[in-house]
Amino acid sequence: MTLDLLSLIHMYPELLAHINKFVRLTPAEELLVCDHIEPKKLKKKEFLLEAGKHCHGNYFVVKGCLRLYFINYKLNEQILQFGIENWWITDHDSLMTGQPANCYIQAIEQSDLLFLNEKSRVELFQKVPNLESYFRIMALKAYVAAQRRIGFIFNQTEEERYRSFTNQFPGFVQRVPQYMLASYLGFTPQFLSRLRAKKD
Amino acid sequence: MTLDLLSLIHMYPELLAHINKFVRLTPAEELLVCDHIEPKKLKKKEFLLEAGKHCHGNYFVVKGCLRLYFINYKLNEQILQFGIENWWITDHDSLMTGQPANCYIQAIEQSDLLFLNEKSRVELFQKVPNLESYFRIMALKAYVAAQRRIGFIFNQTEEERYRSFTNQFPGFVQRVPQYMLASYLGFTPQFLSRLRAKKD
Repeated sequence: MTLDLLSLIHMYPELLAHINKFVRLTPAEELLVCDHIEPKKLKKKEFLLEAGKHCHGNYFVVKGCLRLYFINYKLNEQILQFGIENWWITDHDSLMTGQPANCYIQAIEQSDLLFLNEKSRVELFQKVPNLESYFRIMALKAYVAAQRRIGFIFNQTEEERYRSFTNQFPGFVQRVPQYMLASYLGFTPQFLSRLRAKKD
Repeated sequence: MTLDLLSLIHMYPELLAHINKFVRLTPAEELLVCDHIEPKKLKKKEFLLEAGKHCHGNYFVVKGCLRLYFINYKLNEQILQFGIENWWITDHDSLMTGQPANCYIQAIEQSDLLFLNEKSRVELFQKVPNLESYFRIMALKAYVAAQRRIGFIFNQTEEERYRSFTNQFPGFVQRVPQYMLASYLGFTPQFLSRLRAKKD
């Protein structure tokens, strides 16, 4: 039993380390959480979710990079969020309303994920109240980031927005294709090329 | 004791009704929550929070209307959020980081609020786990709304954005000054006047 417990905990060290950065779980609680996790691997360009389908839970990124996007009225892909190591990704809108997703979640790189089914998550909150604290904090952090982004969109020029994003996330900017970065920042790939050319 | 309990619960019926829409509190838990609430009245134009000051908790709007804004680089007021009846308002950014606020929260109308100090809130989560569920759901709803807003900003023309906002919140649009609505939607008051003139 003890050996089983230890081996289970050690299966998901990245996730447990991340949770324990914000709240404290006992070994028994860690075991319970790990017991509800399903690992998932995605190849590059593979989809985790497609518009029209239901979203069933949250994904923690152990390794890799994903994007959440929808198709806008000009039939372009509009990226709303990226997910990299130690981030959760899901379509919260679909999960909250119970409606089919309007968006797509796709792997930009080959990715290792940990899936937590929504039903399991809510059941776990009863047994592991600190896990609910953790997800409350995650939701707040995501909200604060989204509000900051709205502030930037309204109050920075496109060039300022690009510069501040690259200063904040220099490694990430090297990791994603240029047209995806342009989509996230809300301008055309051509505009981004001109900005990059200007840089040096 | 029983009488005291009843009178306390009945002091904040709007708040308890709102919480019980999302989770279920026992009468003893309702009493505990109410016991940590401080009612607050604001006159029109009075400030709840000013840039440079620390934010100490969350405010539930029983009656009235408030705005959260910051001063942008053009020295204009940029409204990030409105708060009306049955909404919570605070500077989550300041509350989360512990840094002084960058923004202002001001009453647009005379307002009745219920203040929940952040320290009390976190202590209450231990005694009333369902209250943490409630605030997790509130944070998620706020996040989903912010993500939808980002989608609208990038993918609707200013006119479409105005029309869809007025269709969604017709009563609210009548309630706030035109220049505040323009600030929230990210365009100039002049542009909004032209749009409104076009309407009929």
